Amino acid sequence: MKFRIVLVEPKYEGNIGSVARVMKNFGFKELVLVKPPPLGDFCRAMASHAGDVLDNCKTFDSFVDAVKNSNIMVGTTAITGKSDDEHTRMPFFTPKELKEKLCGKVGEISLVFGREDVGLSNEEIKKCDMIVGVPTCIEYPVMNLSHAVAIILYELNNVPPGKIELAKHDDLERLYEHCQFILNQTDYPKHKRNKTLLMLRRIFGRATLTGREVQTFRGILRKIEFHIKR
Amino acid sequence: MKFRIVLVEPKYEGNIGSVARVMKNFGFKELVLVKPPPLGDFCRAMASHAGDVLDNCKTFDSFVDAVKNSNIMVGTTAITGKSDDEHTRMPFFTPKELKEKLCGKVGEISLVFGREDVGLSNEEIKKCDMIVGVPTCIEYPVMNLSHAVAIILYELNNVPPGKIELAKHDDLERLYEHCQFILNQTDYPKHKRNKTLLMLRRIFGRATLTGREVQTFRGILRKIEFHIKR
Repeated sequence: MKFRIVLVEPKYEGNIGSVARVMKNFGFKELVLVKPPPLGDFCRAMASHAGDVLDNCKTFDSFVDAVKNSNIMVGTTAITGKSDDEHTRMPFFTPKELKEKLCGKVGEISLVFGREDVGLSNEEIKKCDMIVGVPTCIEYPVMNLSHAVAIILYELNNVPPGKIELAKHDDLERLYEHCQFILNQTDYPKHKRNKTLLMLRRIFGRATLTGREVQTFRGILRKIEFHIKR
Repeated sequence: MKFRIVLVEPKYEGNIGSVARVMKNFGFKELVLVKPPPLGDFCRAMASHAGDVLDNCKTFDSFVDAVKNSNIMVGTTAITGKSDDEHTRMPFFTPKELKEKLCGKVGEISLVFGREDVGLSNEEIKKCDMIVGVPTCIEYPVMNLSHAVAIILYELNNVPPGKIELAKHDDLERLYEHCQFILNQTDYPKHKRNKTLLMLRRIFGRATLTGREVQTFRGILRKIEFHIKR
């Protein structure tokens, strides 16, 4: 299992340094930044002995480019959904549950963390396959960015390896497009389509599908498609 | 179970603010500082919405005063012992194991965190009943102070309550003094006494003794004492 720590538009360089440090504490190497601020002396000071993590970090202008080629994108949120009906941020996993989901799998996981003030946007969260949230107090659930990273990496730093190869993200995207196509072709109620597609994304996301499973699903959809056309 | 977060001579006000924030995230209220630096604007900024934790924090000039009246003192360390023979920092518990130890107990626990650069001194660690360390990479085990607090509080924020009342720390201290007295009276090898006493402290510490158990132990020691004298 390979992990990529993605910070989307972090505002404070100190947090980026702190994230680099805790990554090194737990043996994570790949840091990816989307539109970061300039990384100066304070960032280096907070990184302490993890300057190499900063030296090797990659920077992108867009969220989509930053998570490219990862098998699973895990979005993080402090605001978790309250009912089963809120597919954007529901269901969410605790860091412990995420670890269990990833046990024995092979692939690249992007752990995506949002802005210090407003987190990830709904549009960004919708692109993610799974949602993880640290269980906190209801009175004050919003954690410091590097604390959230610290706790999630603490849980994930010893995920037992295995042989189950995860589906490629592009293949999953094609599966979702295929599902959308079928909904359109079958006159599925228009006002429900997006919500239902997001639900499918959440279900397939938390099922951590393999490439073979995705292909089998698409085979089923192709059969359906063929019969609709006739 | 009541927890007191004790920071011993923290150097940076930013870390104190960060600790206050993560305490509030996980529902902890009692912050105790030993010889802190002045708490200014940066500390408040890092505390974010946890200003009340800072407002209510207590400040002491000595470690001993800061932990007074706690049933168990848990020391934290990044440098853990390597062999069973090093009783100062061995055996140590992971945060998960500490949680299991405290399940179902009643009492006040001081979680003691050391200085950012040198941690707790051996003298301070020796006074603690238990040692906890976050499992990190061997290459870079030293965590940011507030990250270490974050991970330990993340584990301890939902310790199941119970009815088993822990022994008072003063009673434990008297038990240790009693043990020392017996070692002295029985010509236990002088050069081994301190090490053996520390081993006893570690054993009784991790056994999370109740008040009744301490009294029973002391009853045994009194019997021994009486028979030595004759």
